[in-house]
Amino acid sequence: MTNFQENETLRMEAFSDGVFAIDITLLTFQLKAPSLKDATSSYNLAIALLHQWPNYIAYFISFTTIFIIWLNHHRMYNVIRRSDVRFMFYNGLLLLLVSIVPFTTSLLADYLNTPAHQLSSALYLFLFSGISFTLFCMWNYATKDYHLLKRPAAHVRVQSVRTSLLISTVVYFVATGLSFLVPFLSVLVGLGMVVYLSRLKYHRDRVV
Amino acid sequence: MTNFQENETLRMEAFSDGVFAIDITLLTFQLKAPSLKDATSSYNLAIALLHQWPNYIAYFISFTTIFIIWLNHHRMYNVIRRSDVRFMFYNGLLLLLVSIVPFTTSLLADYLNTPAHQLSSALYLFLFSGISFTLFCMWNYATKDYHLLKRPAAHVRVQSVRTSLLISTVVYFVATGLSFLVPFLSVLVGLGMVVYLSRLKYHRDRVV
Amino acid sequence: MTNFQENETLRMEAFSDGVFAIDITLLTFQLKAPSLKDATSSYNLAIALLHQWPNYIAYFISFTTIFIIWLNHHRMYNVIRRSDVRFMFYNGLLLLLVSIVPFTTSLLADYLNTPAHQLSSALYLFLFSGISFTLFCMWNYATKDYHLLKRPAAHVRVQSVRTSLLISTVVYFVATGLSFLVPFLSVLVGLGMVVYLSRLKYHRDRVV
Amino acid sequence: MTNFQENETLRMEAFSDGVFAIDITLLTFQLKAPSLKDATSSYNLAIALLHQWPNYIAYFISFTTIFIIWLNHHRMYNVIRRSDVRFMFYNGLLLLLVSIVPFTTSLLADYLNTPAHQLSSALYLFLFSGISFTLFCMWNYATKDYHLLKRPAAHVRVQSVRTSLLISTVVYFVATGLSFLVPFLSVLVGLGMVVYLSRLKYHRDRVV
Repeated sequence: MTNFQENETLRMEAFSDGVFAIDITLLTFQLKAPSLKDATSSYNLAIALLHQWPNYIAYFISFTTIFIIWLNHHRMYNVIRRSDVRFMFYNGLLLLLVSIVPFTTSLLADYLNTPAHQLSSALYLFLFSGISFTLFCMWNYATKDYHLLKRPAAHVRVQSVRTSLLISTVVYFVATGLSFLVPFLSVLVGLGMVVYLSRLKYHRDRVV
Repeated sequence: MTNFQENETLRMEAFSDGVFAIDITLLTFQLKAPSLKDATSSYNLAIALLHQWPNYIAYFISFTTIFIIWLNHHRMYNVIRRSDVRFMFYNGLLLLLVSIVPFTTSLLADYLNTPAHQLSSALYLFLFSGISFTLFCMWNYATKDYHLLKRPAAHVRVQSVRTSLLISTVVYFVATGLSFLVPFLSVLVGLGMVVYLSRLKYHRDRVV
Repeated sequence: MTNFQENETLRMEAFSDGVFAIDITLLTFQLKAPSLKDATSSYNLAIALLHQWPNYIAYFISFTTIFIIWLNHHRMYNVIRRSDVRFMFYNGLLLLLVSIVPFTTSLLADYLNTPAHQLSSALYLFLFSGISFTLFCMWNYATKDYHLLKRPAAHVRVQSVRTSLLISTVVYFVATGLSFLVPFLSVLVGLGMVVYLSRLKYHRDRVV
Repeated sequence: MTNFQENETLRMEAFSDGVFAIDITLLTFQLKAPSLKDATSSYNLAIALLHQWPNYIAYFISFTTIFIIWLNHHRMYNVIRRSDVRFMFYNGLLLLLVSIVPFTTSLLADYLNTPAHQLSSALYLFLFSGISFTLFCMWNYATKDYHLLKRPAAHVRVQSVRTSLLISTVVYFVATGLSFLVPFLSVLVGLGMVVYLSRLKYHRDRVV
């Protein structure tokens, strides 16, 4: 029976890894060679490339954020022993939301430099808020009475991770609202949360 | 010899997982940042985004449906012990059909809001009917005399899954025809079948 | 040491599976929703869709061919025990060629119905000839003195597979030349070779 | 505990393999069927195809370089026993840089044949310099006091690999500057470094 469950977590992880890997790589479509009619010199090309700065920023934040979300997913599954139907659906919801990131990223890149930057920033942050909340729900569910955890569960930092994921949900959510007032908040909060979320410790003994 | 067969199922599963993961992620191309000439305000952008509602609906149904198909594929392989040539070709046919989903999805998204919505809905549902039928054939073949099943086969719900997959094939097929009469049937049936197919139990003891 | 080598074959297979899975899925880009200015009815859409028949044919042949190549790759690795530098480079060459298939496929789809169909058919078949030849070289190298084979090597059908891969190389190559004379030869030969290559037996006891 | 760490390296490798596989396959988008208004003959199509020579060159160099980087990544992980937070971030940086390769590749392909070729060549080589440097840092970190290495570490060619990765970083970097003076240097250096990097031996006993 153990073998049965073991197998299931593995394939869910492999499928999730695939979706994460593809989503993170599809961000590359943000980076497009500018189509110059008259590329008369390297100088011209440099100007055209520098003009794409919002794309580079959006690419960088989204890439690092997806990587960090993957890292948290990976750390979470490291302390989880088994899965059940509801947990798989939480996982499916997470993948659905992560798959929308390339869309909000291109919205951010296209409109960061226009008067419509407010909405694009808000949507960008709101999606990350939803992703954080989904991770929070997954963790909450998996650790309730420790029923999906590997033993010895005592070493798992249940409460601390719960708090951190709740904080990140709230920060992204508040920033969603504030991004209508403060320009470039999406960039700052996006970068800050990458640092914050990269440090979550799911297990007492090791952060990996 | 057991080891030999074990290995084969694994790589077929891994390859299938890859194709499922890529197909589910390619749906993201449905979601495109609207290209506004004059993005004078967030309000303008919001209008343009709301205008894309058929894309969001099509994205959501296709994503959840592919996820559910993957889930059924995964549950099926959970009770299957080995593979043979014919089973691999069924699996190949399944992947071919699933790979067409992004195409019918973009057809649905592009024409749901036009007088041509009937055909796009019909093709969308017809493909899902074909996918259900392929899953039905796979299950039928694998469980015939239990020859591809893991033991103890008695715990496998052979007949119940067979019936369910046949029902879903028929529902999708009937809806294909009806979608020429009833608008938005593709949306309703699509969502309903996601719920239905998510509940199939392949094994007496566990649904995962 | 055995463990060391085991591990290497596994990761090469996993990486190859990834590339095959992505290539086979990228073919989907052949299938594009027609962009009708005035989709006045389902009939209009049907006409536009039927007009894309070369795309469906090209998609079908390429999908099945890549699947069959993957199957042969998989069967080959099933009887291979270890790898070395040169074998990895053969494998890399195979992946490079398989990755070009979406390109020749779109060439075939775009020009099958034009006076330029000859060249597009020739290039399509020529690439498959190169892929067959690479598989032939891989097999030849792996089976030379049985040095990369799993034991008991006596059960491996070395000579028979070698002959079959050589035949397929030659058939594709001759068809490349003939496609300048015979229209639609690429379609016929493409389909025929899928059937032929799907039946190769690498091991005496089992075809999987 | 060993099992714990084992598992972590495996999933990091699998995720990395996914990203490498997708990046190497996305290069295919460099190869586009030319859209001829009047494809009056195969001759016309041939001319149009030959006109795309910079795309073929860029595709070939980028494909082989990513394959070689993957090979080095694979060889490195072959002698690494465990991972830690910092090593995972180095790995994330590597994936971020590799994901940019399709972008610099399309820059090279689009401008190799224009007066702006200097900048596109320089950026192309500079990115590879950064990738080499990241591999150098990873190796340096993993081998410091041998703390991430598999035993017996004595068989690992620590110093020799370090030197080689440093050399490749420097060569790419110097070529970045020189590419403003020497046309087509990116092509020559790109091909040369593929050969050089393919030969690195991470372990005394085996090159695989």
